[in-house]
Amino acid sequence: MSASTASPVRLTALDAPGQPTPSPELEDLYRGFERELLVPLWTEIGDLMPASPRPQAVAHRWRWAGLVELARRSGALVPVGRGGERRAIALANPGLGGAPFATPTLWAAIQYLNPREDAPVHRHTQHAFRFVVEGEGVWTVVDGDPVAMRRGDFLLTPGWSFHGHHNQAEVPMAWLDGLDIPFVHYTGSTFFEFGPEEVNDRSTPARSRAERLWSHPGLRPVALPGSRPSSPIAAYRWEHTDAALADQLALEVEGHPGVVEPGHAAVRYTNPTTGGDVMPTIRAEMHRLRPGVRTATRREVGSAVWQVFDGAGRVRVGEQEWAVERGDLVVVPSWAPLTLTADTRLDLFRFADTPIFERLYADRVQLEGAPR
Amino acid sequence: MSASTASPVRLTALDAPGQPTPSPELEDLYRGFERELLVPLWTEIGDLMPASPRPQAVAHRWRWAGLVELARRSGALVPVGRGGERRAIALANPGLGGAPFATPTLWAAIQYLNPREDAPVHRHTQHAFRFVVEGEGVWTVVDGDPVAMRRGDFLLTPGWSFHGHHNQAEVPMAWLDGLDIPFVHYTGSTFFEFGPEEVNDRSTPARSRAERLWSHPGLRPVALPGSRPSSPIAAYRWEHTDAALADQLALEVEGHPGVVEPGHAAVRYTNPTTGGDVMPTIRAEMHRLRPGVRTATRREVGSAVWQVFDGAGRVRVGEQEWAVERGDLVVVPSWAPLTLTADTRLDLFRFADTPIFERLYADRVQLEGAPR
Amino acid sequence: MSASTASPVRLTALDAPGQPTPSPELEDLYRGFERELLVPLWTEIGDLMPASPRPQAVAHRWRWAGLVELARRSGALVPVGRGGERRAIALANPGLGGAPFATPTLWAAIQYLNPREDAPVHRHTQHAFRFVVEGEGVWTVVDGDPVAMRRGDFLLTPGWSFHGHHNQAEVPMAWLDGLDIPFVHYTGSTFFEFGPEEVNDRSTPARSRAERLWSHPGLRPVALPGSRPSSPIAAYRWEHTDAALADQLALEVEGHPGVVEPGHAAVRYTNPTTGGDVMPTIRAEMHRLRPGVRTATRREVGSAVWQVFDGAGRVRVGEQEWAVERGDLVVVPSWAPLTLTADTRLDLFRFADTPIFERLYADRVQLEGAPR
Amino acid sequence: MSASTASPVRLTALDAPGQPTPSPELEDLYRGFERELLVPLWTEIGDLMPASPRPQAVAHRWRWAGLVELARRSGALVPVGRGGERRAIALANPGLGGAPFATPTLWAAIQYLNPREDAPVHRHTQHAFRFVVEGEGVWTVVDGDPVAMRRGDFLLTPGWSFHGHHNQAEVPMAWLDGLDIPFVHYTGSTFFEFGPEEVNDRSTPARSRAERLWSHPGLRPVALPGSRPSSPIAAYRWEHTDAALADQLALEVEGHPGVVEPGHAAVRYTNPTTGGDVMPTIRAEMHRLRPGVRTATRREVGSAVWQVFDGAGRVRVGEQEWAVERGDLVVVPSWAPLTLTADTRLDLFRFADTPIFERLYADRVQLEGAPR
Repeated sequence: MSASTASPVRLTALDAPGQPTPSPELEDLYRGFERELLVPLWTEIGDLMPASPRPQAVAHRWRWAGLVELARRSGALVPVGRGGERRAIALANPGLGGAPFATPTLWAAIQYLNPREDAPVHRHTQHAFRFVVEGEGVWTVVDGDPVAMRRGDFLLTPGWSFHGHHNQAEVPMAWLDGLDIPFVHYTGSTFFEFGPEEVNDRSTPARSRAERLWSHPGLRPVALPGSRPSSPIAAYRWEHTDAALADQLALEVEGHPGVVEPGHAAVRYTNPTTGGDVMPTIRAEMHRLRPGVRTATRREVGSAVWQVFDGAGRVRVGEQEWAVERGDLVVVPSWAPLTLTADTRLDLFRFADTPIFERLYADRVQLEGAPR
Repeated sequence: MSASTASPVRLTALDAPGQPTPSPELEDLYRGFERELLVPLWTEIGDLMPASPRPQAVAHRWRWAGLVELARRSGALVPVGRGGERRAIALANPGLGGAPFATPTLWAAIQYLNPREDAPVHRHTQHAFRFVVEGEGVWTVVDGDPVAMRRGDFLLTPGWSFHGHHNQAEVPMAWLDGLDIPFVHYTGSTFFEFGPEEVNDRSTPARSRAERLWSHPGLRPVALPGSRPSSPIAAYRWEHTDAALADQLALEVEGHPGVVEPGHAAVRYTNPTTGGDVMPTIRAEMHRLRPGVRTATRREVGSAVWQVFDGAGRVRVGEQEWAVERGDLVVVPSWAPLTLTADTRLDLFRFADTPIFERLYADRVQLEGAPR
Repeated sequence: MSASTASPVRLTALDAPGQPTPSPELEDLYRGFERELLVPLWTEIGDLMPASPRPQAVAHRWRWAGLVELARRSGALVPVGRGGERRAIALANPGLGGAPFATPTLWAAIQYLNPREDAPVHRHTQHAFRFVVEGEGVWTVVDGDPVAMRRGDFLLTPGWSFHGHHNQAEVPMAWLDGLDIPFVHYTGSTFFEFGPEEVNDRSTPARSRAERLWSHPGLRPVALPGSRPSSPIAAYRWEHTDAALADQLALEVEGHPGVVEPGHAAVRYTNPTTGGDVMPTIRAEMHRLRPGVRTATRREVGSAVWQVFDGAGRVRVGEQEWAVERGDLVVVPSWAPLTLTADTRLDLFRFADTPIFERLYADRVQLEGAPR
Repeated sequence: MSASTASPVRLTALDAPGQPTPSPELEDLYRGFERELLVPLWTEIGDLMPASPRPQAVAHRWRWAGLVELARRSGALVPVGRGGERRAIALANPGLGGAPFATPTLWAAIQYLNPREDAPVHRHTQHAFRFVVEGEGVWTVVDGDPVAMRRGDFLLTPGWSFHGHHNQAEVPMAWLDGLDIPFVHYTGSTFFEFGPEEVNDRSTPARSRAERLWSHPGLRPVALPGSRPSSPIAAYRWEHTDAALADQLALEVEGHPGVVEPGHAAVRYTNPTTGGDVMPTIRAEMHRLRPGVRTATRREVGSAVWQVFDGAGRVRVGEQEWAVERGDLVVVPSWAPLTLTADTRLDLFRFADTPIFERLYADRVQLEGAPR
């Protein structure tokens, strides 16, 4: 992993509590460990087992304007085709040694498609979504079902679904891609297959077939029973998300429960066949803060990426605070204390790896001042 | 239970296969069984363990017009108040000895409220719903949340929710009540409590608070996590149900899956926190047949009640076939072969006890001609 | 169901609270209900929806000695063969109108097999078990696997398993059969098939193949993954049950948790593929009370049958108390308050329908003096 | 993570399919990515999304004799106490850059305790087990419950249980520790707390209290209901494991199912409250091969560690084959083809991270020659 845990056995550890007295014999023993591909716990335990998570990833903000500018330049220089597959540019967390990983588990990238351009069809075990902070005109075709992409929409490509994209507009389009690439890479569970060079259905319906079957509230097709690992809803449209957030804030005004905390509404995108998260490794939510609201400080096991959908405000993670506006992204490492402040009405999209921890009974949350 | 399984040990059974030779000693033995409150299996097994279900309930049709007429007369003679609780008149299956049970597990009744009339608040462990085949103007107040009732709506009152109704219209209103009263009665699991004499919130919003929190497709409030035994959606509105059925039939025309069988669309009402049935004991669905469609014949473990929401057609159960039109009800016993025929476009509401069998791994379905 | 809920609409109900004023028009209305196969709620609600369960079944005790005597006489007069299938004599709850039902959901019978006698092979959807209070020498062959029956053993025949029995001893053997026949009968979910006339494997191993695969604590065959509706353990042997109870009482002496209450140890038979109950509708347990112990009074939704395995004591249900000794059976209806008293060390086998209620979220328990 | 995925954007990737034409503008773009902490997908996709898993970890064998010798020398030089916590020496996979990780998710170490020595009490969210390949005399005290450690036993310390060890013997003892340290480290979900300096219960019972409550086959205490994330069985004793394996092989001889494949028996250690794996992240099994048996070649998503418990044979992973004997360890990376060959009767302990993948629906298995 990182240098800090690499052999040879570190001399610096010798000063740590509970360490053996240095001696030629000890040095000889440590060299024996190295020859035999062994590392003692006693020199590493401080790094491996701190009192609370000390992730290698760090908090960081990326400006959307900067991402778009580099994506635009890539649009001029980099073709989209078989081999490269996607014109996607990923956030590389400064704590993760240059790897294209927003966090140890999550990938976040801007993807960019020129007018009339196609991204070829493939599939992979990594779970993916798109979130559209601006623009429209691209259809992503998921297992043969064309799904329109429009501002505010959250779109799913669950693992092992064939998918390609095509831009039907006269202008480029950029959006946020979220995947569990780092987690799948780290755990060695990736499979990948090419599909046809071109998307097979270039029709441009306003609603996908998946939505027509599955996006009626509380209803499901009798002919399609059972639960599924991932949501069958290909697109969660902004009109519904916006209405749900507005309803929560209106209920708050009327004195009824629903919001997360005062002035803070939030909805989770769910799999209607289970009521749980949209995909096995990824949680996705939309939050809305009233102007002037400051959230309680919250720590959570697992990492997250936030993107401003609308409005302006500030994101504080530990000792750092960043001003953010439309499209800006902030990465929040595991257990880092997070506080959001809304300067205007502030809508924020969030995705996180929480389902991994919940399924393994390793989730924890701590609110400031609250007992753990 | 019924006379057919009652002691004294039946002489008729003596001719059945595997019976002992009659003798004074046998007669004496049988009288000994009676004295000791015992019954032998060998005389009863034919009734208790037939090759396939032979339910005591029978298929039957009730005309909505007749129900409404008797309900209207009840409206003039029978007050609604504490003690009687509800002006509800239940289907009494002719096979069940006069008990007010549509099937061994399900209750189906017409409930009727005069203008400006109230039904007092109470709660019970029985799960209940309302389905509105015509009219509007009543609000049912469920745990303090006023829920408007309008034609085509399906409304929930899960077990142990306080609920009362009040009619705000200048005309009476009648609707279908469905509950699991017979099942709860038989298994001895009923609890009941009175609430306030009057409903505490007489406001008349178009949407309930429950809908505002939970009826956004694929979205749920972050502040209300976890799964629940029953759906938190208080009302499933007709506009959504109608759109979902229309979408399925349109997809069929376009050559895509979604319908149950050719010309037959169907949606199931679900609990968005689990993806499963709305309440632990009750499944509810809406079906739509194109004009002229005849369904495959289907048997299913468990009993069901169908009500015509719109259109006209025929319902065949075994050797009997009934013409049906708006509001008419047909009860289908367990394992009875059912065929539906649409003379016009035919919309049918259905509720059934299937969740009981699925949760106990006792569900079975057989389609005509298909191997079991 | 019972006479008490049958139409014609009861005049006695007219005095109940909330009833309409008698009049010729009301009488005419009530006759109209009868013609149309309808029953009003307002006359029935007192019976259908009492404040807490008022089951039709009543508490009762059966003496094992009496059962054995009648079974012995049946052994001389009644053959065991195709048609009658089993020489089983069932408890008929005095509250259930003469039906061979211990409770509305549970069947309890003594089964009796003469030396060298066979019971033919069949299968049914009803779930069954055997509990052996005395004797040995019979093998029950479940899906081709011969399972020895010995005092203290609890043996499973999950629904739809082929099974027959054969007595290899020179003496008769009697045991307790428990099934969910009443529940399956009432809900109309029974299927039944004959198997071969004779059991196909007459070998007499001390351990069944099922035990050899599944009765190693905390271990399961890698080749047989997944969860199953019913336990694959064909026989739970007395030596293990006895040891588990002894361990709990020893831990109590040492000051550690494990017992249900002071002096009262209890183990539940479980499905090792889920950790839950042995079969979807039936819970089974063995209890041990130290001499002199009196349990807290307990009510529980659902009905149960208790059989004394060893020792002597008293069983109180509501206002009735019975002395009991080896083999005696007591039926406990839903929500009836139960207290056990041990005059000697007292071992009691218990089975109940609790899994039905738990799976439907309708379970409730109340301990005397504890808030519900 | 590894250098192979680190920025700066790699020139070598420029030759890969689908890459843009090198130019000064492209070079400038790539430098812009670096400045902005971005990495393009198109240069990395070959590493991140291969057709099937290409884990960084490699297969490797460690000789038990070598581990014991180094542990013995550590016993002379390294104290066990607060700070260092444990005298444990971990396998460092040669593909993982010197970190003390057997695989990306699993930790495997030899732990060593001198006569009369203590390891201090602590707890952590990491799940841990011990497997004893030889020796006895240590008690591990888990949440206050002393658990004897003996050859062949598999012992649990689920996450967040306090635990310490003490050696009551006159000779040292060494054993295998398995944990999910690398997974917890990578995902940032570790919590750690010190307990008392000394174990609070130094009694030396043959059976733990946990075993007395939970190690009776198919039985559980009625007083301890519900399911738990981890197994409550503190120790799975060799006598049971051995008997279960012997039973499977005897059943094979008799012509009955149970073994994994001809001559290959295997049992999985399970959580009796769920029927699933012992801990949320770790699967553990014991395998037995008859002399001369060669297993089918198998690939599986997820990594594993095997340790020979008894006998001698060969382990082939891909192109490498190692001779193994008692205590030797082999690490098998994700999706690496594994074949075992028994020269004598060969008993092998195995642990793996499979539960992570099963809970995330990412598990896959491939047998040689079988369609995937």
